[in-house]
Parts: sequence; C-alpha cells; structure tokens
Amino acid sequence: MTIHRITIIGTGLIGASAGLALRAAQFPGEIVGWDRHSSQAELALERGAVDTTAGDAIAAALSSDLILLSGPVFTILEWMEKLAPLLQPHQLVTDVGSVKLAIAERAQPLFGNPGQAGFLPGHPMAGKEVSGAANADAQLFAHAVWLFTEFAPHPLAAEWRAWVERLGCRTMDIQAARHDEICAWVSHLPQFLATALSAMLEDRFGDAPDLQAIGGRALREMTRLGSSPYSMWRDIAHTNEEKISEALFSLEQRLAYVRENLKTPELRDEFERANRFRTILPGKKSFT
Amino acid sequence: MTIHRITIIGTGLIGASAGLALRAAQFPGEIVGWDRHSSQAELALERGAVDTTAGDAIAAALSSDLILLSGPVFTILEWMEKLAPLLQPHQLVTDVGSVKLAIAERAQPLFGNPGQAGFLPGHPMAGKEVSGAANADAQLFAHAVWLFTEFAPHPLAAEWRAWVERLGCRTMDIQAARHDEICAWVSHLPQFLATALSAMLEDRFGDAPDLQAIGGRALREMTRLGSSPYSMWRDIAHTNEEKISEALFSLEQRLAYVRENLKTPELRDEFERANRFRTILPGKKSFT
Repeated sequence: MTIHRITIIGTGLIGASAGLALRAAQFPGEIVGWDRHSSQAELALERGAVDTTAGDAIAAALSSDLILLSGPVFTILEWMEKLAPLLQPHQLVTDVGSVKLAIAERAQPLFGNPGQAGFLPGHPMAGKEVSGAANADAQLFAHAVWLFTEFAPHPLAAEWRAWVERLGCRTMDIQAARHDEICAWVSHLPQFLATALSAMLEDRFGDAPDLQAIGGRALREMTRLGSSPYSMWRDIAHTNEEKISEALFSLEQRLAYVRENLKTPELRDEFERANRFRTILPGKKSFT
Repeated sequence: MTIHRITIIGTGLIGASAGLALRAAQFPGEIVGWDRHSSQAELALERGAVDTTAGDAIAAALSSDLILLSGPVFTILEWMEKLAPLLQPHQLVTDVGSVKLAIAERAQPLFGNPGQAGFLPGHPMAGKEVSGAANADAQLFAHAVWLFTEFAPHPLAAEWRAWVERLGCRTMDIQAARHDEICAWVSHLPQFLATALSAMLEDRFGDAPDLQAIGGRALREMTRLGSSPYSMWRDIAHTNEEKISEALFSLEQRLAYVRENLKTPELRDEFERANRFRTILPGKKSFT
C-alpha cells in the first residue's frame, strides 16, 4: 500500500461521505479534511469522516499521497490550478466533479506531464438533494457506479480505484464526452426538470392547502430534487450547458407531442415505449 | 351500522386493496367481488380481499347496500349507466375514479333524484405504477387523502366516509372542477411527464449498457410512473384533457425558460422558488 495520507478538500456531503466510507472500509492511513467553511470541516471531524482538519489546505495537500477534490465544478477547477504547480509527481489528485470534459481538459496541461503530479478524473453516481457534512453517509456509495475517465497513467491510480471498490462501488471507465452526454440526460435533466416543475408549482399554487393535502408520492418524487442547492448546479449548468440544453429541448418537444396526442392512439405507443424503457432500468425493483 | 354488504366492481389494484383494507379495519359485513377478468376476481378472493366472487355483477350489486366502482374512468361511467336504472334509493354507489367532473356530471341525472339510488363521487389519492389484484395492499390507503366531491346527500354516505377513515385515510371535500384541476398538476402531469421522459430515453438510448449502469436514484424516481398502464391513463387523458394540456404546456414553457437561463442569474431565482416549494410539501421528510 502506498496511499498513506489522503487530504479531502471539500468536506461537504460527498467529501465527508468519502471519508466515512473509507473509514468503514478500514482504510488504515490518515485522512485530513479541509473546507472553505471551517464549520463543515469541524463537523466532518466530529462525525469521524476525517482524522484531523487542516488549517492550511495547501500544506495538507503537499504532505499527502492522494488529494480528493470534492465540491462544485468551478471550485474543483480552482483547486486544480492552485495545487498543480506545487505538487510532486508521486502524488495523485482525483476529483468527484459532476462534469468531466471541462475538468479533463483543464487537467491536461497541469497534471500527468513530466515533473507534474498525476490526475484521475472521477465521478461517483451518488448524491442527495441535501448538502453538507451533516448529511454525509458511509453507505452513500454502496451499489453506486464510480466513473473514471481516461488520463495519463499514475502509479497510485490502481490503488485508489481499489479503495473505491471497497467503498461498495462498481468502477467503470467512460470517455469524458460520453460521460457528460449521458449525465446530461440521466442526471442533469432530472435535476433541472425537478427544479422547473417545483418552481412552476410554487408560482401557480404557492402554499394552497388543498395542493399540499392532495399531492402524493408521485409529486414528492418528481420534485424531490427541487431541494437541491443552486451553488452546485450553477457550475454544472455552465460547464455542460450544450448537452443539458439539448436534453431539455428534446423533453420540451416530447411533452408537446404527448400533449397533442392525449386523445389519439399515439398515446398508447408512447406508454408502450415508456413501459419498455422501465423494463431495462437496473435496480428498479427496489424502487417500485 | 347499515352497510352490511359491499360489492366491489373491479377487483384490480385499487378495488382489491379496498377489500383488504376493509378487512384489516374489521369491516364485519360481506364483501363481494367482480372483475371483467375473472382471474382478477379469483386472485382477490385468494388474497382475502373479498369473501366471495360474483358470477353476475348486476345481481351482486342489486343485493348490496354499497357498490364500489373501481377501474378506469370510462369503465366506471359504463357501470353507472348499467346500474342506475336497476338500483333502489336505499343503495349507495361510490367510485374511486381519477377524474371527478365527468363522473359527477354523468351521475347527475342517474342518481340522487327521487326514486334513484344514491351516489358519492370519491377518489383515494393512492396508487402504484403496477396494476392488478396481485399488487393489492391493505396499507395502500394509509396516510393518504380520500377526496369526495359534492353530490345529493344519502343516508349511507356518512357511514362509508367513516369506513374510509378507518382505512387510514383523511377524508376531504373538494369541488369536482377544482379536483380535476389540482389532479391535473400534481397527479396527471407527473404521469404524462414520466411517460414522455421514459419514452424519450427509450428512443434515444434504447438498452445502451452505459445508460443502464449510470442511471441512479433520480432517473429511477423520475421514470417510475413510466411503468403505468395505458389502459387506465387513456381514460384520464380523455376526460381531463383540457386541464392536463394546460399543465403540460406550462411545463414546456418552464423548461424552455430554464434552458434559456442555464447561464444567467435567473437560474438562481428558479432554484430558490423550487427550494421554497419543497419546504411546503407535506410528508417530504419521509421521502428524502
């Protein structure tokens, strides 16, 4: 084992969950935590997600084998810029950012070249609509897929991937562009859709008591992500705008098609296509 | 107690669940079941949702105090037409149809006038994306709202409402037009949205293995209702088309607004409105 010390930069929901999950998987090394809100780092410490909090993130990173960047995409990009000139080739930086093309492209000149530290772009397909170390969960990654996109090889990469698997994840390799495309449809679209739906209902019904009484499981599920914080999704919207726009536009057109066919036999075909899609979704049984 | 014998016409998911729930609530009378698919009635009998199956639904209805019509809206309308001329004023017909204006309007000349049986338009806000007596559940109505719309008073109405409350429901009165409007937004819109989203993803990705691997909780939740059967939703689309169209069109416009503002500060306001909506949704904690 060569990863003895990990610094987690950003001990919010994902970063603190990673710390808790590493501990649960009996990672024997040291885990250092830092967050721009020191209260988040303190909370991560209290919850046992990190062994110690760093006063200075850069000093902690310099003395770590692996640096895990966790937070909104622009924050990850900033830390990549800050750390790259200071780190050594034996060190590996990895991230959990929700888009990968912007991150992989920014990493290209900064990491993995002669004399530079390594980089491994990653993205666990796990999360919650609530943020912060208070909501961190050692089981957050259980049965999830942790995606990695291609980058220059690094001696510590295989060991980090092995830890990720010990957290209960399946690892999977995907091209950065394909990652951003698929995520636009299956992760980013559901988010912006839930936001639009929730905001629309807020405008239309406000706190009408009959709406509150009548809304059932379908409404709660479809709007659950409406609780998500803007701060994280702003960066995703900025860095994957083209693909997200395409997915949103496609859904607008599809809704118009359904609307125009509420009384025609085309609606039957649409239900059949939807039924078919559901039969191929994995893990659906645990959700029905 | 004056409801001694109940006939459930339509022992699918909702009808058989009502039978199971009545039994669990210790309804002491007899429950007779009929379904146009005799296998559904047999299954309801095997599961203990009914005490006996009827060979002839009309004969069973004629000898019952209360007749519960359960099924798609057009099927309910058909049974109303069939039964009205045959029943007596001491008998009460009630339904669980997903729209109420079409049903209440059809009931107007058929029930509640001198010499006619009574009618009580009802709608439990409970269901699943799967159908049939096999999926029936005595707990389906627990903590749900069972809506009733205004109709001519009938001596058995209060007793049926009391039973509904013993099933674990909160009863609530609502105007038929308001019912159909609210349901268009909080129940019908989520359904047609999930269908459109699922069908769109089916067309675009089919059974692409990376989509299946990457899709997480958000995707499963947002498409869960994609499994719903056309047979039930066709009738809802036909009988509440205007309100559903309005809700779908509004969502199309809202998605376009979000799409056009992915990189503007308006997106922040949209997230804030969505966050606010979520704070007023009841029961949300159990779903996050």
